[in-house]
Amino acid sequence: MRATTIQAPFDIRLSEVPDPTITEPTDAIVKVTASCVCGSDLWNYRGENKVRPGRIGHELVGIVEAVGADVRTVEVGDFVVVPFMISDGTCPHCRAGMQSVCVNGNFVSGEGVDGGQGEYARIPYADGTLVATPEVPDGALVPSLLTLSDVMGTGWHAAVSARVEPGDTVVVVGDGAVGLCGVIAASRMGADRVIAMSRHEPRQRLAREFGATHVVAQRGDDAHQAIDELTDGVGADAVLECVGTGQAMNTAFTIARPGAMVGFVGVPHGVEVPIGRMFGRNVGLAGGVAPTRAYLPDLMKDVLSGAINPGLVFDLELPLAEVAEGYKAMHERRAIKTLLRP
Amino acid sequence: MRATTIQAPFDIRLSEVPDPTITEPTDAIVKVTASCVCGSDLWNYRGENKVRPGRIGHELVGIVEAVGADVRTVEVGDFVVVPFMISDGTCPHCRAGMQSVCVNGNFVSGEGVDGGQGEYARIPYADGTLVATPEVPDGALVPSLLTLSDVMGTGWHAAVSARVEPGDTVVVVGDGAVGLCGVIAASRMGADRVIAMSRHEPRQRLAREFGATHVVAQRGDDAHQAIDELTDGVGADAVLECVGTGQAMNTAFTIARPGAMVGFVGVPHGVEVPIGRMFGRNVGLAGGVAPTRAYLPDLMKDVLSGAINPGLVFDLELPLAEVAEGYKAMHERRAIKTLLRP
Repeated sequence: MRATTIQAPFDIRLSEVPDPTITEPTDAIVKVTASCVCGSDLWNYRGENKVRPGRIGHELVGIVEAVGADVRTVEVGDFVVVPFMISDGTCPHCRAGMQSVCVNGNFVSGEGVDGGQGEYARIPYADGTLVATPEVPDGALVPSLLTLSDVMGTGWHAAVSARVEPGDTVVVVGDGAVGLCGVIAASRMGADRVIAMSRHEPRQRLAREFGATHVVAQRGDDAHQAIDELTDGVGADAVLECVGTGQAMNTAFTIARPGAMVGFVGVPHGVEVPIGRMFGRNVGLAGGVAPTRAYLPDLMKDVLSGAINPGLVFDLELPLAEVAEGYKAMHERRAIKTLLRP
Repeated sequence: MRATTIQAPFDIRLSEVPDPTITEPTDAIVKVTASCVCGSDLWNYRGENKVRPGRIGHELVGIVEAVGADVRTVEVGDFVVVPFMISDGTCPHCRAGMQSVCVNGNFVSGEGVDGGQGEYARIPYADGTLVATPEVPDGALVPSLLTLSDVMGTGWHAAVSARVEPGDTVVVVGDGAVGLCGVIAASRMGADRVIAMSRHEPRQRLAREFGATHVVAQRGDDAHQAIDELTDGVGADAVLECVGTGQAMNTAFTIARPGAMVGFVGVPHGVEVPIGRMFGRNVGLAGGVAPTRAYLPDLMKDVLSGAINPGLVFDLELPLAEVAEGYKAMHERRAIKTLLRP
């Protein structure tokens, strides 16, 4: 079968790889309906992470093709969302809703686990990992369901970690797919005002469509001043940090009101936490690798009912054969997020 | 009148200073019934902070001696607890329960504000700052009421910030007065197990009296292993970091279970936040300068009803004339906390 592999920075290919087979009784084989490229895939693409040659991609949805003898919760023919991390569903962390820290956890495309940007993938711990829709969904819903494998669940986690409450004024730092999904989350949680920080017109438009009531296009001190004016000098009730850079984190702490939480889901790169400011202003920090599996059942209902439509983050759709262009377009910021169909 | 002053590191004196007078219509003059020495006073004492010669001490209780024309909530003759920070009670942060970040806030003994270790003190923003007991309390309750000006409220803030919930397993890092009050707080909030980390026998005893179910006397890796065994390898549901050193913070993050919060109230000294670990394990950090004023009304009820008895943290009581010895005893760790009576 064909699957995307990375050989070296900027070298993304569609390669011939062996078909996956059930190797553990808890495995499932998923025939991929759609997969996509994640912002974090770009770190490998750009060589910012050490590249381990092999399969790549960790966001996918598809049809269950085969299951191991012990699999109980999904069956052949089910349409399933695959979270970006596998989880056994039974360890104390999984039972507490922290599946991203599962003691048997691993990234899809992690060591010994298939990547998602291929025709098929073997998914370990199928019962703990996969969530099936009640019936095979309409094709129009596939993009939104696909976001539940990562970006929508991650944006939701940012809002949960920032403890967004009804009536809040929420600022979302970052206008990538995760930040845009953070706007959906804050809005859906009942925030009164959702301020999206974005300087890119198409992303601003999408943010507004997702529920942003304000857009701040400035950066740095000008941005802080803009938020200050919008909040009468008080600051934001909750801040979603969806980038992971030192500058984004600095902005998040600067605009948060005393007693607020910064929810962070951008993998930290060169971040130095301003502990003195946190202490003096009582601004907290929580978040991390999102337990998307925990949020999946509820978010799936919201997608199927049409309450949310996060699939709009995909502004480029390509056949799997053109995956290299899918990476390139995101790298060059010509696309927010690329959807791939085998 | 007489009041404690610091002239230089290790130079604590009882000095003659001018009697305070009402200078603003929102002021009150408090005749000090009792005051005490804070662990943070020792940083000045030891020269770890730059010493500003002048009055010192920020924890006191006393009787209102005079009030300015605009004061409405306390009157002459009231017994009041003075939080360690003054707050106007009307700014957005005060109204949100974050009085420690009041826009007109200041430490008692801060610039232009009297210290507390004297015979009298002028307290600005009396309405926003002071909390009076319903009647002048029995003398036996004075030590516990005095802890509400700082350590009990600060320990409570650690538990609030760590989001202690009924049934939790809570670890308290630090066996100073604040840590011991943190044990009271966790216990009072319904924690199932409260693990106090302490290697000093008298403090261990007090921790148990305050509700600790377990004591861990080890440090470093041995301590982490002990907590690991007590929690079946899962980690603590909530951690109260009541020290402020890098080592204490490291311990806190190591023993917290995924999804837990570290509540921190020890002023950070040389702390580097392990952002990578926070992200990977989803352990959050919140806390800071405690808004003791926010917790004071409820904690006062608990003290007056006898539900809590935090005054036991005082293991040395001295007349104000011997204040220098009071500092020395705490500095040499002969005393947990010194109470001073004018």
